[in-house]
Amino acid sequence: MDIEIYLKEKRELIDSYLESYFNVPSEPRLLHEAMKYSLFAGGKRIRPILALASYEACGGRANDIIPYAAALELIHTYSLIHDDLPAMDNDDLRRGKPTSHKVFGEAIAILAGDALLTEAFSMLSNDRIQDTGFKIQDNDASRIMHHASSLKNSSLITHHSILRVICEVSMAAGTHGMVAGQVQDILSENSKPDRDTLAFIHLHKTAALITASVRIGPILANSDEDALMALTKYGENIGLAFQIVDDILNIEGNTEELGKPAGSDEKMKKMTYPALFGTEKSRQKAEDLISNAIDVLKVFSSEAEPLREIARYLIKRSV
Amino acid sequence: MDIEIYLKEKRELIDSYLESYFNVPSEPRLLHEAMKYSLFAGGKRIRPILALASYEACGGRANDIIPYAAALELIHTYSLIHDDLPAMDNDDLRRGKPTSHKVFGEAIAILAGDALLTEAFSMLSNDRIQDTGFKIQDNDASRIMHHASSLKNSSLITHHSILRVICEVSMAAGTHGMVAGQVQDILSENSKPDRDTLAFIHLHKTAALITASVRIGPILANSDEDALMALTKYGENIGLAFQIVDDILNIEGNTEELGKPAGSDEKMKKMTYPALFGTEKSRQKAEDLISNAIDVLKVFSSEAEPLREIARYLIKRSV
Repeated sequence: MDIEIYLKEKRELIDSYLESYFNVPSEPRLLHEAMKYSLFAGGKRIRPILALASYEACGGRANDIIPYAAALELIHTYSLIHDDLPAMDNDDLRRGKPTSHKVFGEAIAILAGDALLTEAFSMLSNDRIQDTGFKIQDNDASRIMHHASSLKNSSLITHHSILRVICEVSMAAGTHGMVAGQVQDILSENSKPDRDTLAFIHLHKTAALITASVRIGPILANSDEDALMALTKYGENIGLAFQIVDDILNIEGNTEELGKPAGSDEKMKKMTYPALFGTEKSRQKAEDLISNAIDVLKVFSSEAEPLREIARYLIKRSV
Repeated sequence: MDIEIYLKEKRELIDSYLESYFNVPSEPRLLHEAMKYSLFAGGKRIRPILALASYEACGGRANDIIPYAAALELIHTYSLIHDDLPAMDNDDLRRGKPTSHKVFGEAIAILAGDALLTEAFSMLSNDRIQDTGFKIQDNDASRIMHHASSLKNSSLITHHSILRVICEVSMAAGTHGMVAGQVQDILSENSKPDRDTLAFIHLHKTAALITASVRIGPILANSDEDALMALTKYGENIGLAFQIVDDILNIEGNTEELGKPAGSDEKMKKMTYPALFGTEKSRQKAEDLISNAIDVLKVFSSEAEPLREIARYLIKRSV
């Protein structure tokens, strides 16, 4: 299989859903624009694609779970907007474009992040709930109907599974996941790197949401415990590898390719794998993690091929 | 009935649940402390109490829906932390105590808000989902078990109802609700007040989440459409009245009683009811809304008495 084609096709599925979802402008327009500005800034949609691929590995059809996959991108995008704020990493560039607060100001950037995070839970929950009487906005009804119709073939997905997905995603994004990692990341700036703190940051800041993305597949497909556990291990391994590769690229990439200033981690004295172990050892660690990830997929046959290829792709990526 | 005693009893139910939920410290401790600092700063728990009272009005037992009610307070608290930030209203005091960013710094305040918002959706979704395999934190298991046991008598609540509640709350809090109101509030500072913009701000910033809080009761009790519609109107009326009373108190109250600087709206040139209509007309408007709210409850008998008393209480409050 050609993984580049697979990634492109799946990215287009997600993008097309997100574009349609955000097609109707809401008031105030500036908030709507700020949300779209960051959401359509060229993200690779890795997390949604992982959810689709893991659902396919469990025998499902990617088209049936698009809203659940797409919601992950809203959460990822909110986290980038807030991470870039002056009070946090104070970044001016993201994916080659000015960051949200540079364009819209700090207040709107914070609120656009808040709105994207909150909207993710609307996207996750409003499937087939056509009797929601929320009345303030006229365009809610059409949005919910659109959402419901996109899922008309997914009758195997139970309300219980959807609740499990919401629990999974909120746990991975919040106090016990991504936000905890981001707080530790900030608190550890300028500290002497140590292995435990570094592991905590990476596992929480990056691996938690990636692992949740992968787990959505077996949860929605109602797969058995073996499949769920294998995919959990796959997610943890590629999640950690993904962050290590990110850290290496921050040193070795150039600003134009990265779309953000190269060397910013070193400048901010961030605790990273290369800072603790050096670039070569870090690269070896990432390769070992990818091997582990592919290894745990052996309980699956050819339907998990995209997941294997995504793992190999993640270590070879240049941006 | 004595409404003061009712409010105190219900507030204690909510506080006891929240204290138990946040009893196990999570890492990093500073994040956990920041979340607790704002959550236990003396909030009146009006939104959770409205949810409990509306569930009782629909024949339910308040004890059965505590997590769904308590989650509303997490969302309300996050919104206060973010509203107070230097980039927003730049407030130093809230409920007589220094605001989150004054104590913990801006970065941690933003992230504590993010974490509270996200945790609200964990609280809403993790009821009776004991097979969630989220592995990073050891204390998740005990937390989920605690949660499940608190709900052992609530078997009438369906997964579908819970999804409707999550949809309801996320819609009311996000782009189509509270965040939209906050954005418009900021954009309207220094503008000449007009009736439509003012209505937009108040309906979205305050009334949306209060209405959602009231709607949770009939949704979880699986009540009929008439009850749901009556309670929706009740929520919209008291939500608007609540904000008007807040605006009047901001002018007439004193800093010590309010726990925040009196007159701050005027200083920030906020668009408020008193600024547009004057204090007397605003008070009359609030009283009319409260009468309407009580009037729509006539489809209920004595079980809605707490809701009627809460409406009367809201207009008489001094803080």
